[in-house]
Amino acid sequence: MKVTIIGLGLIGGSLAKDLRLAKFADEFIGIETSEVHAQQALELGLVDRIESLEAGIKDTDLIIIAIPVDKELEVLPVVLSGIDKNTTVTDMGSTKKVITSLVDNHPNRKQFIPAHPMSGTEYSGPHAAVEGLFKGKITIVCDHESSGPQHLALIEKMFQALEMNIAYMSSDEQDHSTAYVSHLPHAAAFALANAVQDKEDRNIIFDLASGGFRSTVRLAKSSCSMWKPIFEQNDQYVVDSLDEYIRHLQQFRDSIKNKHFDELEKLIISANKIRTILDGDHPHFIKNEEKIIKLYTKQQ
Amino acid sequence: MKVTIIGLGLIGGSLAKDLRLAKFADEFIGIETSEVHAQQALELGLVDRIESLEAGIKDTDLIIIAIPVDKELEVLPVVLSGIDKNTTVTDMGSTKKVITSLVDNHPNRKQFIPAHPMSGTEYSGPHAAVEGLFKGKITIVCDHESSGPQHLALIEKMFQALEMNIAYMSSDEQDHSTAYVSHLPHAAAFALANAVQDKEDRNIIFDLASGGFRSTVRLAKSSCSMWKPIFEQNDQYVVDSLDEYIRHLQQFRDSIKNKHFDELEKLIISANKIRTILDGDHPHFIKNEEKIIKLYTKQQ
Repeated sequence: MKVTIIGLGLIGGSLAKDLRLAKFADEFIGIETSEVHAQQALELGLVDRIESLEAGIKDTDLIIIAIPVDKELEVLPVVLSGIDKNTTVTDMGSTKKVITSLVDNHPNRKQFIPAHPMSGTEYSGPHAAVEGLFKGKITIVCDHESSGPQHLALIEKMFQALEMNIAYMSSDEQDHSTAYVSHLPHAAAFALANAVQDKEDRNIIFDLASGGFRSTVRLAKSSCSMWKPIFEQNDQYVVDSLDEYIRHLQQFRDSIKNKHFDELEKLIISANKIRTILDGDHPHFIKNEEKIIKLYTKQQ
Repeated sequence: MKVTIIGLGLIGGSLAKDLRLAKFADEFIGIETSEVHAQQALELGLVDRIESLEAGIKDTDLIIIAIPVDKELEVLPVVLSGIDKNTTVTDMGSTKKVITSLVDNHPNRKQFIPAHPMSGTEYSGPHAAVEGLFKGKITIVCDHESSGPQHLALIEKMFQALEMNIAYMSSDEQDHSTAYVSHLPHAAAFALANAVQDKEDRNIIFDLASGGFRSTVRLAKSSCSMWKPIFEQNDQYVVDSLDEYIRHLQQFRDSIKNKHFDELEKLIISANKIRTILDGDHPHFIKNEEKIIKLYTKQQ
């Protein structure tokens, strides 16, 4: 099998590593607009060769689009219009409603499976690619009834080769959930980094930064070219989630300001319930070995 | 040398482990109000024996107070009034102004060194005690000119045995810096945990929680009995820091809501500057081996 990966950064590069290790395909083609990244990807052995967009999407079994979501809006229609009838296309973008709406009426829509693996780091570029980035994590597959079953089956097989679990959602549900579980934490970290850097001497922050500060603000290192278009495309749910977060912060702040320390205690104890989610002692826990595939729908 | 540790949780227990390993003392006495924790500390070999507060603070060289800061307000005056003239007392609390004000005029004030090691985890209790918790981290020593030089020297020697660096500040400067670098990130995580749990199905959060979500919200697992009194005692600076944070979040939110994406880009790129602080490529970096001791004062 031949796989073409468009975008050889953190996600595309890590996919290339793991899919090769899993022997999911025997030929890996890269498409990369940055000459520097293309060269690095070849040096790192992420792909066998680099091709142009026009050539790389022809005569291939699977195309994985792993580029920032604004760039994807330009590339996806070109890809869907240029592929052979037996080629499957998937993407790894963090937003889905704008992207799926764009190709809803495309004649080759059935060949496309919109996906979003919930995995990443704050680093970017081919050198950020790591083995095992996806293992044990969950991936979202959107609007699966709009894709052809053969194409869907190939993408499910790919995610299983990566040892991922799959959650099926509508694009709208994915954008809502991802706003809270991923986009809001990134916005929170960006704003926290700015607030602290504004008010405190950088040398003091540097010296005093403990593990707690580092972990809370870690996502503020994330790349602007990836994250700006995510916030743009998921603007409504992100604004809602920020409003919700600001409301909770205000409540926390007011309980301290007004010396309502019983109220403060309630807020902390309520927040502590996140332990059962983070520490994995949760009845809903997915055992990856069993490859349980989850279905989230509004009807549930 | 004989060391008495009051409070055998995460901090007190970890201190006991590391000071013993460093052969800083040959006798470790524990004072612990929780019988369960006292028993666990003995089983874990953290201390040689448990004594009452009255007995444990007599005939000892060094007393380390490592209990929640509200409890410390009750214990510290009792300790200072009950000690021999050659006993040194230090504390590990995260707030300092309220605590130092309380004993400013105490006849044994010179025997007390207010300290705050910038190190910890989100866990608590004797079982949370780990080796190497303090190594390479910084500790703040407050108002050092109010302490006797012999007592100060012993505490400096203790922190050097733990392989920590020392920053000297006034209690007021420590409470300001710690508000931004430690207390605000905790408040941000508590509020984020509440916002997400309020708006999203717990099973979905659990399944989708990626590394990014986990790290941003990790501190929300922190114990209420430790953190409630910290927010109480440092209320003014914490409220200021929360106001600042909310202002930055609002700005971030407005740039998305109003589709001012150039502004959003500026905010993300500005936040990205935290990389140079977090990734250590910074001219101010302290080489621990050299035991550089830093002096922060308003005059700098």
